[in-house]
Amino acid sequence: MVERYALSPMKEIWNQERTLKRWLEVELAVMSAYEELGIIPAGSSGSAEKNALIDLNLFKEYEEQTDHEVIAFVKMATSRMGKEARFFHYGLTSSDVIDTALSVTLVESCNILLDQMKKLLKTLWDLSITYKYTLTIGRTHGIHAEPTTFGLKILNWYSEMKRNYERLLFAREQIAFGKISGAVGNYANVPPEVEELALRKLNLKPSPVSSQIVNRDHHAFFITVLALVASAIERIATEIRHLQKTEVLEAQEPFKSGQKGSSAMPHKKNPILCERLCGLSRIMRSFVYTALENNVLWHERDISHSSAERYIFPDATQTLHYMLVKTDYLLKGLVVYEENMLKNLDLTRGLIYSQRLMLELIKKGMSRNEAYDLVQNLSLRCWQTGESLKDLSLKNITVLSEEEIENIFDSQYYIKHVDEIYKRFKGE
Amino acid sequence: MVERYALSPMKEIWNQERTLKRWLEVELAVMSAYEELGIIPAGSSGSAEKNALIDLNLFKEYEEQTDHEVIAFVKMATSRMGKEARFFHYGLTSSDVIDTALSVTLVESCNILLDQMKKLLKTLWDLSITYKYTLTIGRTHGIHAEPTTFGLKILNWYSEMKRNYERLLFAREQIAFGKISGAVGNYANVPPEVEELALRKLNLKPSPVSSQIVNRDHHAFFITVLALVASAIERIATEIRHLQKTEVLEAQEPFKSGQKGSSAMPHKKNPILCERLCGLSRIMRSFVYTALENNVLWHERDISHSSAERYIFPDATQTLHYMLVKTDYLLKGLVVYEENMLKNLDLTRGLIYSQRLMLELIKKGMSRNEAYDLVQNLSLRCWQTGESLKDLSLKNITVLSEEEIENIFDSQYYIKHVDEIYKRFKGE
Amino acid sequence: MVERYALSPMKEIWNQERTLKRWLEVELAVMSAYEELGIIPAGSSGSAEKNALIDLNLFKEYEEQTDHEVIAFVKMATSRMGKEARFFHYGLTSSDVIDTALSVTLVESCNILLDQMKKLLKTLWDLSITYKYTLTIGRTHGIHAEPTTFGLKILNWYSEMKRNYERLLFAREQIAFGKISGAVGNYANVPPEVEELALRKLNLKPSPVSSQIVNRDHHAFFITVLALVASAIERIATEIRHLQKTEVLEAQEPFKSGQKGSSAMPHKKNPILCERLCGLSRIMRSFVYTALENNVLWHERDISHSSAERYIFPDATQTLHYMLVKTDYLLKGLVVYEENMLKNLDLTRGLIYSQRLMLELIKKGMSRNEAYDLVQNLSLRCWQTGESLKDLSLKNITVLSEEEIENIFDSQYYIKHVDEIYKRFKGE
Amino acid sequence: MVERYALSPMKEIWNQERTLKRWLEVELAVMSAYEELGIIPAGSSGSAEKNALIDLNLFKEYEEQTDHEVIAFVKMATSRMGKEARFFHYGLTSSDVIDTALSVTLVESCNILLDQMKKLLKTLWDLSITYKYTLTIGRTHGIHAEPTTFGLKILNWYSEMKRNYERLLFAREQIAFGKISGAVGNYANVPPEVEELALRKLNLKPSPVSSQIVNRDHHAFFITVLALVASAIERIATEIRHLQKTEVLEAQEPFKSGQKGSSAMPHKKNPILCERLCGLSRIMRSFVYTALENNVLWHERDISHSSAERYIFPDATQTLHYMLVKTDYLLKGLVVYEENMLKNLDLTRGLIYSQRLMLELIKKGMSRNEAYDLVQNLSLRCWQTGESLKDLSLKNITVLSEEEIENIFDSQYYIKHVDEIYKRFKGE
Repeated sequence: MVERYALSPMKEIWNQERTLKRWLEVELAVMSAYEELGIIPAGSSGSAEKNALIDLNLFKEYEEQTDHEVIAFVKMATSRMGKEARFFHYGLTSSDVIDTALSVTLVESCNILLDQMKKLLKTLWDLSITYKYTLTIGRTHGIHAEPTTFGLKILNWYSEMKRNYERLLFAREQIAFGKISGAVGNYANVPPEVEELALRKLNLKPSPVSSQIVNRDHHAFFITVLALVASAIERIATEIRHLQKTEVLEAQEPFKSGQKGSSAMPHKKNPILCERLCGLSRIMRSFVYTALENNVLWHERDISHSSAERYIFPDATQTLHYMLVKTDYLLKGLVVYEENMLKNLDLTRGLIYSQRLMLELIKKGMSRNEAYDLVQNLSLRCWQTGESLKDLSLKNITVLSEEEIENIFDSQYYIKHVDEIYKRFKGE
Repeated sequence: MVERYALSPMKEIWNQERTLKRWLEVELAVMSAYEELGIIPAGSSGSAEKNALIDLNLFKEYEEQTDHEVIAFVKMATSRMGKEARFFHYGLTSSDVIDTALSVTLVESCNILLDQMKKLLKTLWDLSITYKYTLTIGRTHGIHAEPTTFGLKILNWYSEMKRNYERLLFAREQIAFGKISGAVGNYANVPPEVEELALRKLNLKPSPVSSQIVNRDHHAFFITVLALVASAIERIATEIRHLQKTEVLEAQEPFKSGQKGSSAMPHKKNPILCERLCGLSRIMRSFVYTALENNVLWHERDISHSSAERYIFPDATQTLHYMLVKTDYLLKGLVVYEENMLKNLDLTRGLIYSQRLMLELIKKGMSRNEAYDLVQNLSLRCWQTGESLKDLSLKNITVLSEEEIENIFDSQYYIKHVDEIYKRFKGE
Repeated sequence: MVERYALSPMKEIWNQERTLKRWLEVELAVMSAYEELGIIPAGSSGSAEKNALIDLNLFKEYEEQTDHEVIAFVKMATSRMGKEARFFHYGLTSSDVIDTALSVTLVESCNILLDQMKKLLKTLWDLSITYKYTLTIGRTHGIHAEPTTFGLKILNWYSEMKRNYERLLFAREQIAFGKISGAVGNYANVPPEVEELALRKLNLKPSPVSSQIVNRDHHAFFITVLALVASAIERIATEIRHLQKTEVLEAQEPFKSGQKGSSAMPHKKNPILCERLCGLSRIMRSFVYTALENNVLWHERDISHSSAERYIFPDATQTLHYMLVKTDYLLKGLVVYEENMLKNLDLTRGLIYSQRLMLELIKKGMSRNEAYDLVQNLSLRCWQTGESLKDLSLKNITVLSEEEIENIFDSQYYIKHVDEIYKRFKGE
Repeated sequence: MVERYALSPMKEIWNQERTLKRWLEVELAVMSAYEELGIIPAGSSGSAEKNALIDLNLFKEYEEQTDHEVIAFVKMATSRMGKEARFFHYGLTSSDVIDTALSVTLVESCNILLDQMKKLLKTLWDLSITYKYTLTIGRTHGIHAEPTTFGLKILNWYSEMKRNYERLLFAREQIAFGKISGAVGNYANVPPEVEELALRKLNLKPSPVSSQIVNRDHHAFFITVLALVASAIERIATEIRHLQKTEVLEAQEPFKSGQKGSSAMPHKKNPILCERLCGLSRIMRSFVYTALENNVLWHERDISHSSAERYIFPDATQTLHYMLVKTDYLLKGLVVYEENMLKNLDLTRGLIYSQRLMLELIKKGMSRNEAYDLVQNLSLRCWQTGESLKDLSLKNITVLSEEEIENIFDSQYYIKHVDEIYKRFKGE
């Protein structure tokens, strides 16, 4: 993971000590289940918990000896135990521990992401309320189309983020599976009841049928949802980069006092955070392919997914966490130039009202083709001469009264349904 | 789309005539909504439906003239209409029609996929019942691990496919959104009530806040789920390719009579269908990245997604449909060599029972390390000398009785929980 | 392949008849080599050429019977032959024919691409000469930075396309390998001399060591270069989309007379071709991953690459061909608004000269930090008050003379090295 | 970067101190060029070199203040300088330094990779010589095809790796470009002569026309080649995984003494290194897409590539370095079971000789179809009854003499051209 993009509390989730502790949790949950079922002596899990050792140096030493993480872990964990050590890791295969612990970690990371998304949703909602009626030009193909409000732009982001929140909830449900089912998933040396009890303690469901591991479709689905969230952020960041362009300047990302935009050009305020977010979204996308490839393992498991997962799980969760935190900061400090929005709205001298003009002509009885041609013609003259479309209409159109023409060139007309749109989100 | 992989009924969904018909459906649903709200004269939509023309040649002619699909479509569709033509496409922007129709298409394609998955689920379930108790070796890292049953392998596929079925249901819900909200989503020239009524007729929900189009996160999510389904099939196909290898030969894909395996080697039966499915899954994966990139459009929409979608939507839905159909065929005709499964089970002369041997030694009071070392030692001798691990154990282990040792080398021990696993799926 | 993006002559390369003809070419080249080496009777290849039949319907019939393309092909091709039929496909394995023919096809497609790139290079060069001294603002982060010329922008595209041309030459060399080496590459039934002679006739080199097929690293490399070319086009298209934005309007893609920009807004000229090119580049990128995955085949070959290649080879070559043709059209008809370039250059009222101002202050003896702070301060006032930076400098800076300040705000200063840059490309 | 996969000397290349030192090198090269051209006072660069400070803590402090890496770097580096500080970073923009230094780093990383590939090439060559005549079955579709030699398998890997070596040489040439051309590439404040002299000192060529940065097609090409190398390794690792399968066991990756294969099954030797390499190749592939997306920057540069490059450059170079080192280890210690190769060769009781049998029948005058059907028939009986194809042939075929039939079932026939294949690589 790139250190500068690793933020607390996500960062800590992935350090090695935390990983070993989570393995221990799984082992203890299993012992306690055995105990509850009367398979091992009462008190074993209590003693194990008391005597278990987590010591990173010792772990590394053992790992070097054995080239096997779990054997090293068991050796370390039991090094100070008494006879309860016999029932530690009893009947288990490495993956029972590792894979179940991984699910605990992923659920935990998911919760952090959901929390952060909730904050971002609130920020988006508040911002959409602030600019609910703020007129701005809607652009399609990068070209001025029709007036809309800045609030609606933000509400659109809010709405997508809400969908993503629901997708992530669904993904969390899908990732919350563990397995304590032995080397090939047949429960040969550990009965299904142990799995059920142990996983309940860890807030996981049993994988209904597992191989040596929990199937990787669970994980792949999780990763694709993260990439989808990232692309929503990329869309926001891309919009702001556009709005911050010198010629547009309708919005600007926050600029820390003391921050320098460029070593060469002191006046420059660059949307570097937005650009950074766009780059990070590319990274998030790249994890999806790997996660999908990892789903196709040989037989009852091959371990080829493991090296790849050492990159993608810590990187994907931490990178998205960073993105969510920074997007919240970005939007909370967003500088909005409403006056420039109004100025830009008038940039085409009324051409943006052309569709409405056409529709009013049709209402007056013109055919669609006639109306289209007339308006296209006037638009061209407006474009070429600099005269406003309103003035040209007043001079050249007779089927509409002056008042009717005045009404057509009224930007309020375009935002008359804003309240109805917002009402769809009532209760937020 | 590659013609040979395009099957009915998915193929027909994507032909141009069907597309134009679906555009017409949307236009008529909107007219009918206008009518219901009293905005346009009663009878307009009825007349429009009666007089509307779909003529591919005319469409192509107009498209060449205008370089604009929807203008060409409207011209064609209204070419025989009377005065109702004035209210055709009234207040709409092209994307109201195209994007809403696309959602209808995607829902339709999704339904075909769901139907096919249901068939496949039944096939998988039946197969898993047939081989419920069929002993076979479980392999991890490609190496023999412990006995399991062939039914459990299949049940694992069934279980993943069931998760995918639920994901696809969720994705269908997510794709079933339309929009009739004008050029930038502000409902300037068409009130939200029209959208609501029209979409209800089309079995779609209104996008709560749209730009010129329905946001592409809906579509990206849909595509990622399709890729996930494909990777589940790839996992099945990969397993069968492994099982069909000359040295293993535990299963074989169906071989049509008359089919020739190789132009050179008449004896060869190659798993070409499975290999084909693996290649197609790579193709399915590749659509995900494009779909995710398509989510990041400029402002109230740019049209860069459109050219890409001409590839990925028809190709992804048709390719997955083909994969599902062929996987069903593959599994229905799967040749299973149970006798080879038994033969392979014995290939390591008992080494696969080593873990259990170790656990029984621990139960007798040996420390984990002692037991491990002893079993590893015997295993090595078994490996090197060709003597069976049971015989070696009988000769060298004293803490276990002869009967106890005999019991250890019993493959039934490993599958004693099969019934309990299947019970988790009761009601299927 | 999406029909609308398939253009001649690339389109024809991939149709089935052409494919069968190319298979025949390979078979005949092999026969002729055998003949030359005296292994088969003189005249065999001549008779075979004369009597060989290509009949698509017959081919399809046989393919359905045998489920094997090459067996069907051999049956069809030899159906009218006499005794020479015995030496047709003699000693060959299917892949000797298919894979060698594929290389011929890919070289052919590569030549078409190279031709089209040459045309595009000329267009780019000419355009860069036309606008060599045309002042325009250089933008970094989307923010005005320093003046440059429009010609330099284009020269940058030219320079990248030239690198791509060289990469594609290198890729062509890498794809021009065939193999006539039998089922596993051991030349068991066909001596290396036959391969050498036959491939020479087909303008291919022998793969120095082959499996059943030519290794897929050759093909993967080829595909990655195509994606790289596509991304160069995407960069051009993205720039023009930016320049065509309503607020910028420095350039515009060609607009056919009669073309309609929008069904709703008659005034709109949208950069739809550029947007289309951007979407297609996403598609081109997606082929890379598949091509790289296809490199990892099992043992002496598995056929999983084959189904995937039915998509990516025809689609990648045809799509890039379309992109090259359309980019040439785009640039040849590009509308350039030099007056808007000048207008935009002045948009920041001189802020773009701030770095030079700072450097001149340093030259006069100010420390870098002092100079930076002073200029940043004046820039801020310029930004906030609307006064030009030149006027502010004249009023507030004493270490520089009036003339020196006037000189600083001279855009010609920034383009004084244009000739030297162009000289690096002399001889084009 | 995942720490466990970061090996010296690649690891050190990417640490921050090394980065700052490389920035300093670039700054000093530029100063020295200025000096040589008489633009700044003689001795400036000497003093700067002597007084320059690299202090990570100070750098971090300044970076936090300014949010700008290069401004922080300049402040740190010049903090102890005298008047020469005025000419430090003189006329430069941040990217002149960062991007040029990046190229130096990438060339350096490329050299390490090339060195490691050279070692691997030698290992592959030696191995291919060792097993030049070692008979083994060639497999297509995972099914036994014809005999070949284990040396030829390895020679195939060698041949691909050699092509990759040449591609990487080409990529190194393509990445060895720097730029000292100012904020938008116009050389406004730094003449082209300075660039030329400075880059010569750094062993880089000037980018013939640059924007604020060196174009990202250079970098994208470099990354795609790395992914291609990784996929070659993945192919090797996949083969060994197949050969190590319990049923095949023709080869085995090295097994450290003391290493434990499984916490549960003491006998298991798992190809975990090969599996790891396969997973890492997936990661390498994922960088390609990001690198290609990074090529499409806005105008004279946007900085969105930067955050993504913080992941992909260190991760791609280090991961591939790890893979190359480990593959060399893997192959040097590869355990080869020649006796199992021979045993497996006989597994089909002669079916692998069926093509030759057919060809000999054709030579005797049978038609291709007749011969095919006869051999297919005998093969089927061989398959079903367990009788060998040779015995069946002796009993059932009359057109061939006993001696002729004996000759057909001779594996040496299949490897008679091995020497000729190796000769193509003479001089290695």
